[in-house]
Parts: sequence; structure tokens; C-alpha cells
Amino acid sequence: MPDTPSASGLLTGYLDECRALVVEEIRRLVPADRPHAAFLYELMLEYPLREAKGLRPALCIATCRALGGTLEAALRPAAALELYHNAFLIHDDIEDESHLRRGRPTLHHLHGVPVAINVGDAMLALSLQPLLDNIGFIGLGPSLRILQVVAHMARESSEGQALELEWIRRGVWALEDEDYVRMVEQKTCWYSFITPVKVGAIAARQDERRTGMLAEFARCLGIAFQIQDDVLNLSGDVGAYGKEIGGDLWEGKRTLMLLHMMRHATSEERAEAGRILSLPRPGVHPSAQGSALEPLLEQLVTEGELLPGGRERLLRVLAASHPPREEKTPEQVRFLLGLIQRHGSLDYARQKAREWLRRAEESLTACEGWLLPSEHRTLLHTLLSYVLQRVK
Amino acid sequence: MPDTPSASGLLTGYLDECRALVVEEIRRLVPADRPHAAFLYELMLEYPLREAKGLRPALCIATCRALGGTLEAALRPAAALELYHNAFLIHDDIEDESHLRRGRPTLHHLHGVPVAINVGDAMLALSLQPLLDNIGFIGLGPSLRILQVVAHMARESSEGQALELEWIRRGVWALEDEDYVRMVEQKTCWYSFITPVKVGAIAARQDERRTGMLAEFARCLGIAFQIQDDVLNLSGDVGAYGKEIGGDLWEGKRTLMLLHMMRHATSEERAEAGRILSLPRPGVHPSAQGSALEPLLEQLVTEGELLPGGRERLLRVLAASHPPREEKTPEQVRFLLGLIQRHGSLDYARQKAREWLRRAEESLTACEGWLLPSEHRTLLHTLLSYVLQRVK
Repeated sequence: MPDTPSASGLLTGYLDECRALVVEEIRRLVPADRPHAAFLYELMLEYPLREAKGLRPALCIATCRALGGTLEAALRPAAALELYHNAFLIHDDIEDESHLRRGRPTLHHLHGVPVAINVGDAMLALSLQPLLDNIGFIGLGPSLRILQVVAHMARESSEGQALELEWIRRGVWALEDEDYVRMVEQKTCWYSFITPVKVGAIAARQDERRTGMLAEFARCLGIAFQIQDDVLNLSGDVGAYGKEIGGDLWEGKRTLMLLHMMRHATSEERAEAGRILSLPRPGVHPSAQGSALEPLLEQLVTEGELLPGGRERLLRVLAASHPPREEKTPEQVRFLLGLIQRHGSLDYARQKAREWLRRAEESLTACEGWLLPSEHRTLLHTLLSYVLQRVK
Repeated sequence: MPDTPSASGLLTGYLDECRALVVEEIRRLVPADRPHAAFLYELMLEYPLREAKGLRPALCIATCRALGGTLEAALRPAAALELYHNAFLIHDDIEDESHLRRGRPTLHHLHGVPVAINVGDAMLALSLQPLLDNIGFIGLGPSLRILQVVAHMARESSEGQALELEWIRRGVWALEDEDYVRMVEQKTCWYSFITPVKVGAIAARQDERRTGMLAEFARCLGIAFQIQDDVLNLSGDVGAYGKEIGGDLWEGKRTLMLLHMMRHATSEERAEAGRILSLPRPGVHPSAQGSALEPLLEQLVTEGELLPGGRERLLRVLAASHPPREEKTPEQVRFLLGLIQRHGSLDYARQKAREWLRRAEESLTACEGWLLPSEHRTLLHTLLSYVLQRVK
């Protein structure tokens, strides 16, 4: 499908509309009879109300409707997934020590870690409700299947998150593409792509076979999307969605490019890159006290107010109480980026994204016979060309 | 019911048995085909395997069986609640900056905050599964009612947690008993008492009326239990379950005793108590650098290696970079305890616990006609005398 202005217009319009419907649904979920917990419900809306693409609601609704299901049938599950997604982001931002989310400070930067953990938990709790409420609209059988898929999804997401945290904890960098793909599939694809599509298909009363075929389309699209998201993060073209440029390198995030570079770098490059990647990003940990005092100590010695022996003793105590914490520097991050460029890792990742997109397209084509010709089916194709356009 | 040795023997035996069954069930839930996430599932078992009373599984199973339901019907929901409970504890320990849980370091102290948040999330995700699996055993209708109750429970817990965090954030100490009761009911009773009993009753296919009557028994028992738990924390008789003695005062936890004391203290006492309570507990924040260096600075001045003017300049820089953070001292905590004793707040709380126990007993008596005479019904009565014994 060509990427025409009208296709991009459809995409934006469709996404915005779905997002608005889902946000309205989330607002409806907030109980009105809980004035004593008003601050909690206000914070629960903070992330969902920030500007976002609305990809998940659109995937869920478009799949349901392209299969002859109603908007009504998909709306509550779409709201549940959007709540889950935002809860996951809140906890993920704490775990990754992220500063920004959608162009504004992360929730734990605004309100502290305890409040942010609890707001996430409250959103997870609330996300069950629309799935239970949906029984009256789509019946027991499909509702239970959706609950099963969502329970499965939540397990996959936390396993993917655990995998990434374990790599970070153990300083693992020697990873293959399939390790990356497994982590992305579990951590991101399951809740952002596979489940919205599965849930949309189940809400439209489709059987396991069709649901599975669409899920495979979603899986491949999701992997392509994530690779491309990682590429954009490094190439500085991050659009209007507020992530920090190059933030992935500062955070030491395992991306296809970074892993490719680590596999192809010389052993000296690899050693230096590994050392840099193991350093914390600046500002995450309290800065070393010693370095702040050192210039003053020098000055006092110069002015004769402090003897060199006294300075040494002070420095020893300072070093013992606050071991110097090296942090990543902009030069080091530029060094990493240089290695990635030199080893052709960005082009490699773009190529991989295109391969996953091709698989997504093939999977969608296999469903063509039983997807109703409609703007909803067109939307699914447009998503492919949207990601392809980002790959260019 | 008299508190005889045999009653206490029944209690311990019953609780241990239920706990063992539920732990076995939780072990069964851990997927065997996930070697790449083995470390995650190992950490998920860490809290459930630590020594614990097993109150929740026993409440759920005893209620179900006293109503003619089978062990089989209650076991999976009991495991779901135990998983939820332990997930909540992991997140709560991070939020409260607690050091110990059941006599061992808290999960985030052992493995860091990111891992601990994710393990909690993974347990929440897994807790849905036994509720869905239970459909095959107790049927669709009761399973859906249980899902509704659990969704409701999760909302109540996070609202209760939000309420307490908001009091902490705003430094609120002027609270009435009903504020405390509301917080405890939401934060603790719902998942520890009300839901185990409700779920047990629904698993035994009881109607709304009976389920509601038993839930009222559980609510009153839970409030009595929590008040008494708070009393024991201050009176140093904490049993074998590993909480820090007086830890509630160090943490500045809102308890019935503390709120009673604050209402009855003189305005001077109240001002001083409020000031102490607003201080952090030691060790939570990095200790002030200045105080560690000060003795050395003194010594250097004494030894003539540093001039007094240089010391002043160093102290100014230290103070500016690390504003001195006052922390609670043992004397201050003893001062709070003294106020609580002087104003009769412990006796007041014990009296309130007895009142709630009386209400619990009345509620249970109202159910007497339709609870089968059995060790399961006896267990529910024994729980009353167990809490009463703790009140003495």
C-alpha cells in the first residue's frame, strides 16, 4: 500500500478518534463516590491524558471492526489495555530511572516513588473492571477468553521486564538478536500489539485460528516497531513524543544496534564500550561529595589555611565515606554512537526492521480473505506503511 | 469460647495446614517451561515461603468448608489471595522504606527497587490465573463473582494505601478514629479478612446476604486484629513474626494510639511530637556528610594543620551541598512512647480492639444458624479468642 497523504491522514484521524474514545471510557471508570481518594484518581489520569499516539486502542478497535464486531464490543477491553499500558509505564519509569515521559517529568519525579508505585497498582486493579463489565455486551465466553489473554499478557510483560533487569544486574552485553527479540516480544509486543489485536478478534467472536493468525501479524509489526523506535532514539528524530534523544545510550538499554556493535567491535572497543555502558547516567545517584570539596581544599592549601597533610587526611575520609562514582559523560556517549555508526549497526537494525515488517505484511495478507473491506482493514495496512516510512 | 490449650492447638494446626496447601498451590502455578525467567519465579516465592501465620488461607478455607463447600473449591482462590497479599507486601515495603519482613531483609533491600517492583507486578499477574482455573471446579457464576470481589478488593487496597501516603505527604496527624478505621479497612481488612471470607462463601455457593453477613464479621475481626497488631508493635511483644519492635513509631505510622495521644496531648507536647514524627528514620537517607567530617576538622585545627577560618569555609560548603538532615533519635522515640503511655492511649486502643471484637462476635453469632457444626466453624470462633488473647 503506497504511503499517500490521504493514508497518513486516515492514520492520524483514526488513532486520535480511538484514543479519545478510550480516554473517555477511562474517565468513566473512575468512581465518582470516592472523594477521599480524589488525589489517587487524579494521578491515575496523568499519563493517559498526556499526548500519545493511541496505537493500542486503534489496533484493538480496528481489528474488531474489520472482523464485523462493533465498536461497543472492543471499547472496554481497549480501555483496560490502555490502563494496563500506562500502569506498566509508571513502574517501568521507576525501574529504568527515567526522567521524562511524553515530554513531561515521569510520575515518580513529580510525586515520589511510593505514590507512583501505588498509582500503578491502582491502575492495574482498575483495569480488571472494564473486562468484567464487558460480559454484558459480548457475553461470558468471549469475556473469559479475553481475561485469559490479559492474564497471559501480564505474565509475559513481567517476564520480559525481568529478563531486561537481569541483563542489567549481571552486566550482560554478549547477546544475540534472538535474545533481544524475545525480550521485546515479551516486554513490549505482548501488551502493545499482540493483546490489542487478539482481544479485538475475540470481541468480534473469532476462533482460535483466526485470532492466532492476526496475533502473528501483530507480533511481527510490534518487533519492527520497537526496532525502529530504538533506531529513531539514536538518530535524533524522535518526533513529538517526548523521549530524550540518545536516552537509550545514557540508560544503557539493550538495542539491536548496540548488541550488533558489541558483536562486531574489536576486543578493545568492546571492553571500553562495556566499561562505559556499566556506568550510571548522571544525576541518578548523589554526586560524589569529594569532587565538590576538592577545589576548595586546593584553594585553602594555596592560601596557607590548610597544610598538605591535613588535605590528604580529609580526602581519605571523603573517599572512604563516598567512594567516587564515575558517571557517563557526553564524550563517552558520543564514543558509543561513533562505534554504532562505524560498524553499520544502524543500517543493520533498519534492515532487520524491514524484514520483520515484511513478515507482518505476509501475515496480514494471509488474513485478507476474511477481513471486511473497510477503513478498519485499511487502517491495519496503513500501520504497516507508517512503520515502513519510519524505517526509511 | 474459652481460650483452652486445645483451641490454640486447633488454631496452629489448622493455620499451618492451610498455609502448606496454599504454598503448594502457588508452587504449582509457577510455570515449568520458563527457564529463561527462573530467577523471576524464584523471587516470587521468597515472601510466600517465609514463615507466616497463614491467616488468610485459613479464613478462606474455613469459611468455605463451614458452609459445606469443599477444600478443592477454596484452594485456588486462597492461593490467588496469598499471591496478591505478598505482592502488596513487596510494594508496601518499598513505599514504607521498611527494612525487615518476617524476620529477614525486605525484597528491595535484597535485590533493589526495580527488581522488587517487577516481582510484585509478576505476582499480581499470576494471581489472576488460579481464579480463571477455578471455573472448571466451581462453575462460571461463582468464579465471576469471585473475580468481581477480587477486582473490588484491589481497588480498596490501593485507595487505602493512597490515603495513608497522602497523610504522610501532607504531614497530617489531626485524625479521628474513623479516619484510621477507614484506612485500615481499605488497606488491610479488604484483602486480609473481608475478601478471604467473601471468596470462601462464594466458593461454597452462598448468596449475597450470607456472604455479606460473614464479610461484616471479617471486617470487624480485621479492624480488631490491626489495632491489636499496632498495640503489640509498641508494647514490644511482637511474637515470632519478625517486625521491628517500636518500628511503627520510627516509621511514623498512623495508629489508633498515636492519634489518640495527639488529640489528648498538650499543645506543646503535640507540637514536639509532630516535629519528631516528621523526621525520617535513621539510615533511610544518606547520612549528612558534614557530621562525619566535623570531628576530623576539629582535630586538624587542634593539630594546627587547619586554620579556624579554613574550617568555617569547609563547613559552609558542606552545609550547602548536604543540608543537615535531622533524623529521629532513640530518645525522641522514647519521648513519643512516654506520651502514649501517659495519655492512656494503649489502654484506649485495647478497649477499642475489644469493642470491634465484640462486634465481630455478634456478627458471627448471627451466622451461627447456617454454619455447619465442624472444626471449620470452631476455627472461626477460635480466631476471635486468639485476637482477644492478644488484647489482654
